[in-house]
Amino acid sequence: MTGVRATIGVLGGMGPEATILFMQKTLDAVRANDDADHVPLIVDHNTQVPSRIKALLDGEGDDPGPALAKMAERLQVAGADALAMPCNTAHFYARTITDSVSIPFLDMVQLSTRRAVELTAQGGRVGLLGSPALQATGVFENAMADSGIRAVCADDNDARLGIIRSIKKNGPSKQATDALQKAANRVTDLGADVVIVCCSEFSLIADRLDCDVPIFDTLDVLVDACVSFSNGKLPSSEAARRSSAASIPTKTDHQGKENLQC
Amino acid sequence: MTGVRATIGVLGGMGPEATILFMQKTLDAVRANDDADHVPLIVDHNTQVPSRIKALLDGEGDDPGPALAKMAERLQVAGADALAMPCNTAHFYARTITDSVSIPFLDMVQLSTRRAVELTAQGGRVGLLGSPALQATGVFENAMADSGIRAVCADDNDARLGIIRSIKKNGPSKQATDALQKAANRVTDLGADVVIVCCSEFSLIADRLDCDVPIFDTLDVLVDACVSFSNGKLPSSEAARRSSAASIPTKTDHQGKENLQC
Repeated sequence: MTGVRATIGVLGGMGPEATILFMQKTLDAVRANDDADHVPLIVDHNTQVPSRIKALLDGEGDDPGPALAKMAERLQVAGADALAMPCNTAHFYARTITDSVSIPFLDMVQLSTRRAVELTAQGGRVGLLGSPALQATGVFENAMADSGIRAVCADDNDARLGIIRSIKKNGPSKQATDALQKAANRVTDLGADVVIVCCSEFSLIADRLDCDVPIFDTLDVLVDACVSFSNGKLPSSEAARRSSAASIPTKTDHQGKENLQC
Repeated sequence: MTGVRATIGVLGGMGPEATILFMQKTLDAVRANDDADHVPLIVDHNTQVPSRIKALLDGEGDDPGPALAKMAERLQVAGADALAMPCNTAHFYARTITDSVSIPFLDMVQLSTRRAVELTAQGGRVGLLGSPALQATGVFENAMADSGIRAVCADDNDARLGIIRSIKKNGPSKQATDALQKAANRVTDLGADVVIVCCSEFSLIADRLDCDVPIFDTLDVLVDACVSFSNGKLPSSEAARRSSAASIPTKTDHQGKENLQC
């Protein structure tokens, strides 16, 4: 541990914008009088991790798993007291990461599922505003399997992909916000009791959305967990996993269909 | 080296805002089609480095040198191919860093001095827009000692400190920009042929300044060097130093007066 605060090791660079946004949010989350009040991070801003989309959806290219395991190992060696990964889709490889280190992994998907459980009743419906790739890999659906809540997604993959592309190309815009508002309306029309923003492009405009039900961003959940951990507060065991992770699949479903619950 | 691009190890967290700005500028500097086109970084976002101001100006607190040396060592072990440090004042400890690793250190102060030399004639005057602490430690003045150019600083420490405090508290504002414009005018009135923005708070508003002479930001110089290095272009030996550094002082001048050239 560096200084008096615990250090968070960040598996980053997926994409680099999301990592920088996570760092900015972590900075903004702390009321600081001096640099030392802020959370120390070691960030492997690794832009060279093999494409998760290509491996998971197309069954092509190198397997990102070994690269993520190596990143986790070297972050631990470099002095990280816990790990975090500000990328929803990459949580498909959560168990590969936890199997390679002895420090806790602050699992953004598990932590967000817990928050959703707190915000809705047993049998509640959770609307996911994520990328089509996240949806196809079933990362959240698997995390929610034994939670008593279930995911709902609208059949608007093309629209959400269009928003992501638009933000990547032109940055946040009114057009993108309007389109994301429509996507949020669709999942509430499908009966969502709570909405999760689980795509880092959407995070850039999430605070502009107007929802009739509670809505939160997975990136904010991860920031809260990192700040708490750095302050000495350990999240519960199912959210900060060592090698006992169970609910994220380890077998790649290249078709990405069987895992879908919505 | 990770993937096909060289990885830059970043001694960061001094302050954390500057590190995030450096990362954002590095991201913006690359025309990318995919994550993999971006520069891979390993960022030790260490907010717990002992206060440089306290050690250098007041002669109090722990020596930041050993902490910086340890950060450099573990960045090298973690896979960095070169090091960068987006903090002007911390370059006082440049030799401590280069003495502890075998990979190049992309020295922001040396690189910026070289750019200033390119922009002005022999005997030229370089106006420094930095913090009073940077000025008092003479980091730039020492780097320019044998360069044929010399630094000029206005006698407006209180004004520049006021701008820094204002930006730290309220973010970039018109008031801060107007005050920094006045500071820029003062150094050009003193005969500066080129102006260097060498304070990360000022970097947030540097592009709003209107100057009659060339003006550049040290952070942008460092970004250029990191992108070039990652692409396989090595800067010249005097700017990317191994253990042969010579022009940065290693003895702490607690009064910070003797080093002043302006």
